Amino acid sequence: MKRARIAILGASGYTGAELVRLLLDHSRAEIVALTGESKAGLSMGEVYPHLAPYNLPKLVKIEELDWSGFELAFCALPHGTTQNVIKTALAANSNLKIVDLSADFRLHDVEAYARWYGQAHQAPALQAEAVYGLTELYRRDIKKARLVANPGCYTTASILPLVPLLKKRIIAHDPIVVDAKSGVTGAGRAAKESSLFTEVAEGFHAYGVGHHRHMSELDQEFSKAADREVLASFTPHLLPINRGILATIYVNLRKGKTIEDTHATLASAYRGEDFVKVLPLGQLPSTRHVRGSNLCLIGLTKDRQKGRIILVSALDNLVKGASGQAVQNMNLMLDYDESLGLTQAPLFP
Amino acid sequence: MKRARIAILGASGYTGAELVRLLLDHSRAEIVALTGESKAGLSMGEVYPHLAPYNLPKLVKIEELDWSGFELAFCALPHGTTQNVIKTALAANSNLKIVDLSADFRLHDVEAYARWYGQAHQAPALQAEAVYGLTELYRRDIKKARLVANPGCYTTASILPLVPLLKKRIIAHDPIVVDAKSGVTGAGRAAKESSLFTEVAEGFHAYGVGHHRHMSELDQEFSKAADREVLASFTPHLLPINRGILATIYVNLRKGKTIEDTHATLASAYRGEDFVKVLPLGQLPSTRHVRGSNLCLIGLTKDRQKGRIILVSALDNLVKGASGQAVQNMNLMLDYDESLGLTQAPLFP
Amino acid sequence: MKRARIAILGASGYTGAELVRLLLDHSRAEIVALTGESKAGLSMGEVYPHLAPYNLPKLVKIEELDWSGFELAFCALPHGTTQNVIKTALAANSNLKIVDLSADFRLHDVEAYARWYGQAHQAPALQAEAVYGLTELYRRDIKKARLVANPGCYTTASILPLVPLLKKRIIAHDPIVVDAKSGVTGAGRAAKESSLFTEVAEGFHAYGVGHHRHMSELDQEFSKAADREVLASFTPHLLPINRGILATIYVNLRKGKTIEDTHATLASAYRGEDFVKVLPLGQLPSTRHVRGSNLCLIGLTKDRQKGRIILVSALDNLVKGASGQAVQNMNLMLDYDESLGLTQAPLFP
Amino acid sequence: MKRARIAILGASGYTGAELVRLLLDHSRAEIVALTGESKAGLSMGEVYPHLAPYNLPKLVKIEELDWSGFELAFCALPHGTTQNVIKTALAANSNLKIVDLSADFRLHDVEAYARWYGQAHQAPALQAEAVYGLTELYRRDIKKARLVANPGCYTTASILPLVPLLKKRIIAHDPIVVDAKSGVTGAGRAAKESSLFTEVAEGFHAYGVGHHRHMSELDQEFSKAADREVLASFTPHLLPINRGILATIYVNLRKGKTIEDTHATLASAYRGEDFVKVLPLGQLPSTRHVRGSNLCLIGLTKDRQKGRIILVSALDNLVKGASGQAVQNMNLMLDYDESLGLTQAPLFP
Repeated sequence: MKRARIAILGASGYTGAELVRLLLDHSRAEIVALTGESKAGLSMGEVYPHLAPYNLPKLVKIEELDWSGFELAFCALPHGTTQNVIKTALAANSNLKIVDLSADFRLHDVEAYARWYGQAHQAPALQAEAVYGLTELYRRDIKKARLVANPGCYTTASILPLVPLLKKRIIAHDPIVVDAKSGVTGAGRAAKESSLFTEVAEGFHAYGVGHHRHMSELDQEFSKAADREVLASFTPHLLPINRGILATIYVNLRKGKTIEDTHATLASAYRGEDFVKVLPLGQLPSTRHVRGSNLCLIGLTKDRQKGRIILVSALDNLVKGASGQAVQNMNLMLDYDESLGLTQAPLFP
Repeated sequence: MKRARIAILGASGYTGAELVRLLLDHSRAEIVALTGESKAGLSMGEVYPHLAPYNLPKLVKIEELDWSGFELAFCALPHGTTQNVIKTALAANSNLKIVDLSADFRLHDVEAYARWYGQAHQAPALQAEAVYGLTELYRRDIKKARLVANPGCYTTASILPLVPLLKKRIIAHDPIVVDAKSGVTGAGRAAKESSLFTEVAEGFHAYGVGHHRHMSELDQEFSKAADREVLASFTPHLLPINRGILATIYVNLRKGKTIEDTHATLASAYRGEDFVKVLPLGQLPSTRHVRGSNLCLIGLTKDRQKGRIILVSALDNLVKGASGQAVQNMNLMLDYDESLGLTQAPLFP
Repeated sequence: MKRARIAILGASGYTGAELVRLLLDHSRAEIVALTGESKAGLSMGEVYPHLAPYNLPKLVKIEELDWSGFELAFCALPHGTTQNVIKTALAANSNLKIVDLSADFRLHDVEAYARWYGQAHQAPALQAEAVYGLTELYRRDIKKARLVANPGCYTTASILPLVPLLKKRIIAHDPIVVDAKSGVTGAGRAAKESSLFTEVAEGFHAYGVGHHRHMSELDQEFSKAADREVLASFTPHLLPINRGILATIYVNLRKGKTIEDTHATLASAYRGEDFVKVLPLGQLPSTRHVRGSNLCLIGLTKDRQKGRIILVSALDNLVKGASGQAVQNMNLMLDYDESLGLTQAPLFP
Repeated sequence: MKRARIAILGASGYTGAELVRLLLDHSRAEIVALTGESKAGLSMGEVYPHLAPYNLPKLVKIEELDWSGFELAFCALPHGTTQNVIKTALAANSNLKIVDLSADFRLHDVEAYARWYGQAHQAPALQAEAVYGLTELYRRDIKKARLVANPGCYTTASILPLVPLLKKRIIAHDPIVVDAKSGVTGAGRAAKESSLFTEVAEGFHAYGVGHHRHMSELDQEFSKAADREVLASFTPHLLPINRGILATIYVNLRKGKTIEDTHATLASAYRGEDFVKVLPLGQLPSTRHVRGSNLCLIGLTKDRQKGRIILVSALDNLVKGASGQAVQNMNLMLDYDESLGLTQAPLFP
């Protein structure tokens, strides 16, 4: 069967390497180009020894790419620079399809982008064109899109349990508390003191409280679903694990709604989905039960306060929270089976 | 200087071993008896090799104890059996002082005890006599007490930041969300599948949602402080670390109150305390910064929703959350300097 | 394409669950029966929540199996009981193929078995028939075998680097020091104090020094390769990780042999192999670069003492060290492509 | 009681912070100066939040120090720069006592220094004066020394079990295999990719094989003890833990010597020592049983090959492997009780 020619920009980061891992096991994709600015000239095996056994192109600089040489590119580059790279790419090859894993095209509102990211957007026309790549919510648009903005990891973990409940008016739009915990891969491979083993292992702390950029995506999607402004409380924490996000979410039911309504709404929203699973009422997920897979598990239970419920979602931040969802979107954009190459069961223990 | 003769009941558990660690470095305490029902006859070094280099009494059964042979006993036994042991002990030696680390004497209300622990209390008179051992709150009573009920670890981490704010009417009594995370030592040394390395490492999950027994202590202390019934939402989670509790707490300010009032109230409540430290506004603690020490650190920051704040507390569940606070109480009961033997700085990294 | 009907005996252990994970992604295998004595009646999802999203048979007791209902069975049962189960199985269905992951059929010598395992073998005829399942060494026999004895994890990590060197007389048969380190999954899912998170995390120790049962396999295979008795020094250690074995091996070159000879011998022995990779001279492997994969990586380097070299091998004890090699053997026995279902790249980080 | 005035140079590194932790609990030491070139101007609490609760001097640059302001300085600076700093310090205050934790004064042979460290020594006269700070071996000289060269962590773990056996001619001088494993704090606080949590957790590997600089110290001390050249095989590995070194050591007995002789020799060498403990024959230590303490535990057992034995030593690389031994040396140099401030029991779990 024909394989689509694929480029991965920013292959020297963890989400880039994870894209490689997933595509190596994908029957309809062929990796033809890998970029890594500071590692250009090296083989993937030199940058990531776990990929040494595989036959992969060398890392090059973006400027060395021939944009006509592939049908789809994954962009796993820092926000800010991404928008110019994509503008250039689409100017060079207007048929190119792109899944962007940066934050550059996630916000529809250019003012929100400028406010949260501290600079004016350099490609507002593309920003208007981009489709938000939360696959289960925007499947239809993604199928037709040229540019998909893959959501953030915290965002995916929060949107999947809450958007159906806001849309169907099951829960109140306020207060919503999202207490989220992430593994260290979320911080990337940059050599920072705060990411050292010695600064992370045998410990736990909150960070970015009150001003984490993923909030802007939550605001956009929650407000759209509720059809009014929604501002959730959101606290990210750093777990001493490599992979995994767990979000514990506290919400109030709207008058007359029950936890059974909540469960039924979620179960119905995700019936037949390959990757989003709603657990039986009262059962809660663990990050270790999704490791390495594209699954997002959602559980919910009563709070002891009447009218309140607690939802818990779990996913692997590098898979459903990043590269797995990116491949899921690629599958739609290339008209493949949506789950192709994503059926690996979780790695436990 | 004279050393008080001390017994530790339940020395084969982690809180028991931690009491030994702390008392070995205490200039006014001498460990004269150690019990461990299933390990009776063994030396401490056989049960805990890290204690092999120290000169310690052998483990015996409780029935072998001579209750007149020591001035103070720590009880680190399972709840339920504890109350009978203590009744017996005080009947045999009415001058004995006891710090109980179980849950048996924490609840003043016998009905609450029966409801949460599933059995009628066997020593209601002692339950009435017992002083709740949250040292910073009940110091005066602890000094005069014969029986101190040492608080739970989650409870200490929640009470220290919230009780002063409820008392001074800074925050609303509802909603209060306590999203708490604990290291694995909290589960004790029992050989359970759920505590295996392979079931805990590289993962994270919530447990006991909606019905954890520490809630009963929170209810008692929060309601007392607020002078009305308070029911906090409380979710415990299991961290893949040995030691440490971090509680992330979401509260609403009462009308007219500010985050500066909140900070000032906490700073004033704990001014001069050796072990409870309120961080500068906006700074949040980490569990790794209290490891092995008797410290509880409290930080707070604004939520982006007006009128809401986020508090974070951190302590070592085996020290300030259990054995350290027990020694702190012992110091008061024996009229020692309150911080004696508890001044070790945290072990980081 | 037709899928072979497969049973997994002992599916409630970690190697059983790992077989399920691998076979779920195998295009020519269908899991039709799962056994678990103490968990019989439960679904796999109840025993292993990470497998809940998949459609799998319920766990039953071995006595409930219809031996004619499948073409191949994996036995992941404790040693000792295994031999009787397999005797029964083959008596009921003499066409059945079996890959046994226990130690029961690994030793060809019944006296060695009795000595190391403390009991006489109950099925000596089958023991004589069984083929040792170190795939790269015994591929031809495995293809024709009815009963394959899958090697131990430490053994695979030691045999792969050393047997070609002993066979080709590159290294001396004595001394050989194998300093081996394993992740905790090697201890299985039994609830033992020594496997608790709190007893393993943030620590490291040697165990079973001088009398680990995997030595008996080493003795058999090393002696066979060298054509004389070989007794390696072997020390296993427990790593605070879930998966992975790393063996650091100290050997002496035979007179006239060089490290280049050593490297060339290994490179030639494993040329074209899908799962055994010899790294460039001087480069050494890490367990994290094989996690979740069926790879075994081998590196070697000069010691500073003339005539001595250090070899390091790494594999995932649950995959190439157990269930992955078992599937590799199944593929041969069922005349499939040897790497079918085993091509997943390592999961890093 | 009078406290000696102490400076810590390089207090922003882990061994510097560990010196602070130990001296905070030391009744005869007062920290009067802390340096940290890149962190000058910050408080210790800003650099190490776990030390924020303590009253400590601000970090300054070395050039700001008044060398006459303290009686003893700990140097925890990089090798190479250290020798000039110490030369300057002793020129300014010839009564100053110095414990140097770098490698600059450990080798008595200036040529060996040049060969291993790639540069000529800048202070050969001081190198000749310096005493090697392996306390148990050189106690008498340390008491009188002005400049003590504190040994490396791997070195301490290897020298303590082997030097008495080489001295007493119990074991052969060749072959000696030291397979050593260290926690990540050994790599310091520098922000390097290889020290990231994601590159270390859930994995294990060897490094620096064949050319680790601690070998030069082993060569010096082993050769001195054996009175002939000794070249041990030495392989360091990186453990995914914060603290701890475990060395597994393979040696041959000399003709006529037994394991009982070996045990008796070690037991006699360390009889009465506070910090070096020889375990009963056959019992082996774990790193978790020394965490945070100044202990070194030594165990030994028979190999199954006649005439060979396996020794295992364990210590905390930041304590007995660095800062704890430095304080032990300080105690001797200031004529204090050798164990003052070092009696904390290990922190387990």
